[in-house]
Amino acid sequence: MPYINIQVTREGVTREQKAELIKGATDLVVRVLKKDPAATFVVIDEIDTDNWGLAGESTTVLRARQAAEVQRS
Amino acid sequence: MPYINIQVTREGVTREQKAELIKGATDLVVRVLKKDPAATFVVIDEIDTDNWGLAGESTTVLRARQAAEVQRS
Amino acid sequence: MPYINIQVTREGVTREQKAELIKGATDLVVRVLKKDPAATFVVIDEIDTDNWGLAGESTTVLRARQAAEVQRS
Amino acid sequence: MPYINIQVTREGVTREQKAELIKGATDLVVRVLKKDPAATFVVIDEIDTDNWGLAGESTTVLRARQAAEVQRS
Amino acid sequence: MPYINIQVTREGVTREQKAELIKGATDLVVRVLKKDPAATFVVIDEIDTDNWGLAGESTTVLRARQAAEVQRS
Amino acid sequence: MPYINIQVTREGVTREQKAELIKGATDLVVRVLKKDPAATFVVIDEIDTDNWGLAGESTTVLRARQAAEVQRS
Repeated sequence: MPYINIQVTREGVTREQKAELIKGATDLVVRVLKKDPAATFVVIDEIDTDNWGLAGESTTVLRARQAAEVQRS
Repeated sequence: MPYINIQVTREGVTREQKAELIKGATDLVVRVLKKDPAATFVVIDEIDTDNWGLAGESTTVLRARQAAEVQRS
Repeated sequence: MPYINIQVTREGVTREQKAELIKGATDLVVRVLKKDPAATFVVIDEIDTDNWGLAGESTTVLRARQAAEVQRS
Repeated sequence: MPYINIQVTREGVTREQKAELIKGATDLVVRVLKKDPAATFVVIDEIDTDNWGLAGESTTVLRARQAAEVQRS
Repeated sequence: MPYINIQVTREGVTREQKAELIKGATDLVVRVLKKDPAATFVVIDEIDTDNWGLAGESTTVLRARQAAEVQRS
Repeated sequence: MPYINIQVTREGVTREQKAELIKGATDLVVRVLKKDPAATFVVIDEIDTDNWGLAGESTTVLRARQAAEVQRS
């Protein structure tokens, strides 16, 4: 009966990647805890970059700075 | 002060159904725990079927297989 | 596949009440959304009163004030 | 390593307000708990008003009643 | 910046198993989404069996029935 | 109606610090979003260090290494 919630920023996660995350997370609790895959939920939340903060600033701001640094280098 | 979070797949839950879920969940904690409804939050999260996994596969895949089985029967 | 999370303060919820909450929440999504009870999770979180705030103060403080008011009345 | 989740109704929170919430929540755990801002996540969830219930009804219904009361006054 | 929350019933998960879950979940988002492990949180919640419901009953009741079935077989 | 969840490792957060977190988080949404403090929940979750992973290892392991580094310096 595990419930696994994976929260990531909304930055283009593809359907295939979501399928891999769901399979990988399920396999993990089956392997480590011998859980029943048929009773294992995996829920992926995609969060807008304006809505996810790290070190006091939004990911939108962080990504813009990272892009500028790449351009300068 | 209960906080109740109901997570379901995004598969066409109507406004009326959401109202029923909100009322039903609130009534439940009022009845069982004598909580104050005016201080009871109910939050419904609707999750894309690509983003909700069961038994290691996404609900999108599961629903497609279910639909195919219905067609074959 | 609903996942229902009920958060309440840790103030003596009994085993029987928890069973009622689990049954009631499951019955609610079965009735309203025709979900499969065998694939419905209900998780109850009990939060210490020091750890739950309302109107900027902890429930511990709130309960102490409520108790004092009862005594004065 | 704090993870702070702020859930509010989807009622027009601006990018600037989100940035203030992220900064303010990060500053709070840095000030009170001496946490490392570079390892502090803030995630803002915006919930549709149909999906957020208070006192057994949705915020959509509540807001409509509040608007009508303003008009009558 | 992924945040991964793994909720399981409190049924004796060992320190070593928790370390495996943390490593496995982190490796998964690094492999699939090329995320930075140094900015990946994994939080494991252990829930009392009275507090986790499946199919309308608590896991405590479910486990008792499973144990009785094993004894009868 | 904001719901604010603050998750930190269980490393001795005092009652006073919890009160500060509750007040600070409430004040933040009142100041930035003009929310009603009387309808603002703050819930603090304290997570065992074995149960919180960063960079693929538990906080227990991380803290032990940090302590050893302090001793060596």
